[in-house]
Amino acid sequence: MLHFVLVLIAIAGSFSDGANTNQCTPISTQKDTSTILLQIRQEMKKEGIGLYVIFPDDEHGSEYTQPYDKRRDWLTGFRGSAGTAVVSERAAALWTDSRYFTQAEEQLDCANWLLMRDRNSGVPTIIDWIVSELNQTAWQPGTTAAFTSTSWWTSANSALKIIGKELRSVDDLVSRIWPSNERPKQLQGPIVTHDIEYAGETVAQKLNRTTVEMKRLGATTAVISALDETAWLFNLRGSDIPFNPFFKSYAIIHADYQVNQPELFVNLAQLSASQYPPGVNVFDYSTFWSRLNQTGTNVGINRIMANTKVSQAILNLIPAKKLLLPLSNSPVQRIKARKNAKERKGMQDCQLRDAVARMKHLGWLEKQLNEGKSINETQSSDQLVVYQKQQDRFQFPSFRAITASGDRAAVVHYSAAPETAQLITKNKVYLLDAGSQYLDCTTDITRTHHFGVPKDLEKRAYTRVLQGVIDIAEAVFPTGMYGRSLDHLGRMSLYRDGMTFGHGVGHGIGHFLSVHEGPQRIASPYSALEEPLADGVFLSDEPGFYKPGDFGIRIENDMEVVLANKSSYENRQYLRFNTITLLPYERSLIDASLLTNAQLNAINQYHAKVRDILEPLLQGDEAALNALRTRTASIDSIPTIPSLAYISIGSSSLITFILFLRILF
Amino acid sequence: MLHFVLVLIAIAGSFSDGANTNQCTPISTQKDTSTILLQIRQEMKKEGIGLYVIFPDDEHGSEYTQPYDKRRDWLTGFRGSAGTAVVSERAAALWTDSRYFTQAEEQLDCANWLLMRDRNSGVPTIIDWIVSELNQTAWQPGTTAAFTSTSWWTSANSALKIIGKELRSVDDLVSRIWPSNERPKQLQGPIVTHDIEYAGETVAQKLNRTTVEMKRLGATTAVISALDETAWLFNLRGSDIPFNPFFKSYAIIHADYQVNQPELFVNLAQLSASQYPPGVNVFDYSTFWSRLNQTGTNVGINRIMANTKVSQAILNLIPAKKLLLPLSNSPVQRIKARKNAKERKGMQDCQLRDAVARMKHLGWLEKQLNEGKSINETQSSDQLVVYQKQQDRFQFPSFRAITASGDRAAVVHYSAAPETAQLITKNKVYLLDAGSQYLDCTTDITRTHHFGVPKDLEKRAYTRVLQGVIDIAEAVFPTGMYGRSLDHLGRMSLYRDGMTFGHGVGHGIGHFLSVHEGPQRIASPYSALEEPLADGVFLSDEPGFYKPGDFGIRIENDMEVVLANKSSYENRQYLRFNTITLLPYERSLIDASLLTNAQLNAINQYHAKVRDILEPLLQGDEAALNALRTRTASIDSIPTIPSLAYISIGSSSLITFILFLRILF
Repeated sequence: MLHFVLVLIAIAGSFSDGANTNQCTPISTQKDTSTILLQIRQEMKKEGIGLYVIFPDDEHGSEYTQPYDKRRDWLTGFRGSAGTAVVSERAAALWTDSRYFTQAEEQLDCANWLLMRDRNSGVPTIIDWIVSELNQTAWQPGTTAAFTSTSWWTSANSALKIIGKELRSVDDLVSRIWPSNERPKQLQGPIVTHDIEYAGETVAQKLNRTTVEMKRLGATTAVISALDETAWLFNLRGSDIPFNPFFKSYAIIHADYQVNQPELFVNLAQLSASQYPPGVNVFDYSTFWSRLNQTGTNVGINRIMANTKVSQAILNLIPAKKLLLPLSNSPVQRIKARKNAKERKGMQDCQLRDAVARMKHLGWLEKQLNEGKSINETQSSDQLVVYQKQQDRFQFPSFRAITASGDRAAVVHYSAAPETAQLITKNKVYLLDAGSQYLDCTTDITRTHHFGVPKDLEKRAYTRVLQGVIDIAEAVFPTGMYGRSLDHLGRMSLYRDGMTFGHGVGHGIGHFLSVHEGPQRIASPYSALEEPLADGVFLSDEPGFYKPGDFGIRIENDMEVVLANKSSYENRQYLRFNTITLLPYERSLIDASLLTNAQLNAINQYHAKVRDILEPLLQGDEAALNALRTRTASIDSIPTIPSLAYISIGSSSLITFILFLRILF
Repeated sequence: MLHFVLVLIAIAGSFSDGANTNQCTPISTQKDTSTILLQIRQEMKKEGIGLYVIFPDDEHGSEYTQPYDKRRDWLTGFRGSAGTAVVSERAAALWTDSRYFTQAEEQLDCANWLLMRDRNSGVPTIIDWIVSELNQTAWQPGTTAAFTSTSWWTSANSALKIIGKELRSVDDLVSRIWPSNERPKQLQGPIVTHDIEYAGETVAQKLNRTTVEMKRLGATTAVISALDETAWLFNLRGSDIPFNPFFKSYAIIHADYQVNQPELFVNLAQLSASQYPPGVNVFDYSTFWSRLNQTGTNVGINRIMANTKVSQAILNLIPAKKLLLPLSNSPVQRIKARKNAKERKGMQDCQLRDAVARMKHLGWLEKQLNEGKSINETQSSDQLVVYQKQQDRFQFPSFRAITASGDRAAVVHYSAAPETAQLITKNKVYLLDAGSQYLDCTTDITRTHHFGVPKDLEKRAYTRVLQGVIDIAEAVFPTGMYGRSLDHLGRMSLYRDGMTFGHGVGHGIGHFLSVHEGPQRIASPYSALEEPLADGVFLSDEPGFYKPGDFGIRIENDMEVVLANKSSYENRQYLRFNTITLLPYERSLIDASLLTNAQLNAINQYHAKVRDILEPLLQGDEAALNALRTRTASIDSIPTIPSLAYISIGSSSLITFILFLRILF
């Protein structure tokens, strides 16, 4: 699943609208928020603020939030994952990005809310709008610091300072007015030990590595709030967050962890004492804030390390003189990204299980279509889960599958619903981006299929995308290099045809954690938090091409960064990728005439390997075997007219004899 | 000529020394600076400072400085281009980078100065050393703000604040003690009009474009101090700076330039009134500071734009509330980088003249070696200038040529001297990196030659470097993309063999200005000042490989960024490079078996073009023609054992007939 990184430069003239200027015609898909707005403004008044900012996030900055935490959705009616609401005494506005404009038009209560189309020309940023809304009023701005990122807090305060204002942190005002009978219950399933058989490393070993890193950075104490970090560090897994095996928690780690034991804060009702990680003090989740306050005022603690993922509420409790600045990536995040040997093995192994499920699904789908049966997008993804559940150690999907037929495949974050799902047909592409959580890994795989005769442009685009996948996968590069330096490789073949795509080439992948994790990635925009590629990091490789209203292509493999083990002239290690996803490409969509010999060879080698490995695992499933064999058959290059006076001849057979006679002109 | 951008990550353990710990044994190549240090410390005392920082720069941050401005050289004895000196009451230290360690060991007065090997482990940074030197003393630190960059001033003051100190700007103390009979005279040759025939644009047109950009950024006034910018904007050229047609000058530009005329400050003795640019108020150079002070206090001027190239002395005279922040690239620099039609034509045309000079030189050199004559590095580069001077519009070299035989070619910034020059021989590589200033352009071209039978490793490295040159040259990319995204293309073939190089792939090139100009470049390190590639920008394309003590390879072409004129799927322009350098590669150093078909074809096409264009221009010079013809002969690919089961067969002849019989195993 692609991780949204805005890489396209806004195209002059491609946007024209700004804030709502049209008449609002409320429609039945919109919630009436009039009463809610009255109530929240009353609460704002009680707190002495004239403007309140509501983010879509939970206290841990989680990528997915549980229904209980969807405050902004309840407040506005809008249910997209990205979007921030601002309520002032006289107006209410919601900012979201271009992925969600249509959804916001359908769901946002337009009678009461302005839709702010982020980055469209003429649309103010949230902060600019707040400043203009507050300027020359007596109103004070507020937000709930536990849901506010430190970067947003800092940027907003810089701008507010100019008009003599400053953000106030207030209680969670939405929770005050959200009736408990309307509000979903909190997800608080049991927290269980993540077995060493999968984790590969004890909590003590992980603490040792984490504190070595803390000492290197000069920290005596570190505060951890990201849920993938607490889950990883303490070898625990939960079910509080959709698609992620996480549980709500905080941790305070001391560099001298053998003397001052780490403190883990969880809802005690979720974790039985028998599962407490050894050498760790477990406290109730609710006591975190008072304990953090004590930690800040403890004279024995001098240098406290927060990271860029903590909320402003955490930063507010760390005395400025004790705070280690600048905020950086969490030491846990950095260590976790480089998987240990057991984790690496798990990441490789379960790709096979996921590939078996995908091949069984593909065989099934192809058979249905060949038999003239109607299958729509959600029926297809539901059937995939049936096959995934048959696999050992499978837990649940790692994200909501993107199952998209034809023009829907061009909608980068398309979310199919049963009531509006499109049929999958033999004359359209079908894109399936799906991933799994296994006890021993997380997967994220995309294939774009065609079950009939594709159009030339579909083939061309697919082949260009595939060339990007291969050029990334074949890269060799020195240690110390950043993934951003490789982004171009994933696009350069597309560029030849004036094509590109609006997301990054690759994101980090967790190990039975989140399908998206940092601090490594492959995307051209500069980020001060990106870290160099290193062996043991796992990344996706997923170029794409999207032609709105027509079709979309994406191919995604998961890769491991490994040592290239090559000699070098300067005593430096080189790295390369090992593609761990083993699933055939769509043969009918490949235009071999576009490929270099090296690329064609890479495809044939990959297909031979995929066939050899998957064939025995699919015995008895003729549809799957058929789908595998037709797709992995060797591709010959197509001799073309020698326009450049060069001809490439290729064959996938192991030994090729060529007799040639060149007649020079 | 490569522009030094540190791209290598320091390799653990490759450095061991820090500051001088060895005994100092003064040698005859070192100047005795005892008296000078006594004198400068007296001057420091008069100014009330206990520490003084001396940069190698002039007031304009010029890449090259005239002898009159080599204050740091006179003070320390060290003559390398990079290196900063610090004198405190009890110590004196010089920081320089690895390019200059050997030179500093030879030249720096080791009895009085510590040599600080920048970035070596254990070596403090200048600022860290200053802080530790001043800490717990009553001394105040000082520097001469006119020679100090704003970024250094800000960084130093941030660190000094912690120990309660702040930089003072003091007079130029070196000038006070440098005896006038020892000091070189100032270079103050006449400043002459740069003809519209070459410039392609009037001063009024340039001012119009500059002020449009200023208004866009909200500036009422801009201060310009970079000498390439004043030369370009006012269509004037001088001879104050070696290798650059510049004259010492400042300018103050007002956005309403037709009412408030731009102010140019030059030494009036250098510019006759008849050459004053129309619509420009010309003042004496010495009056700039008082005029800048008036400008800052002028109530009619509200927003003054300084850029990152101005000295701290300029910033000190702009009231904080009027200063447009953050400092950015100068508007003149940004406009100048995208050449006008006339400039583009000039940049293309004079490459031919430079190529003719290079081919005549190459023919001559090859002939000398074949006849057994002894030619050393400086004799060779001197002879090149003889041929360059025969070319129309030639002015002078654009930098000191890097002329390096064998292992000297591995010293990236090697500077040959007649007394120590190595012989050029038939069993070693010979690297020649040279450029010219013509009235209608600036060039910068590197070729690495071999006149005998190269070693396999030399061929392999040369071919890997050449692959990098070609992969960069063949790139296609969308507008808005940064050059840093292309850096990998120039290295990826080298990486296959564990090779890389420690400088950027390419730098911007001026038009009868500096051979290095921003704000575009091709280098992976992030810079907030880099700007996206755009058509009309000229860049070098110069991968290399350096094996210390053995040999060095670099190939450098100059390129123009042009519109690719291709259709795109999102209404966006694409760009590509046009290689304007037309000089053959070294055929004997090319290992065709490493090349892809596309690369081999690109070489043959390039060579055919080079031959067609240069042959008529070299008529009568048999040695040059011979050098051209042997090098541009078509290269056939070498059929290799089909280890990957693919064979590429190539021929440069226009029509190739291939009969082939494949026997499948």
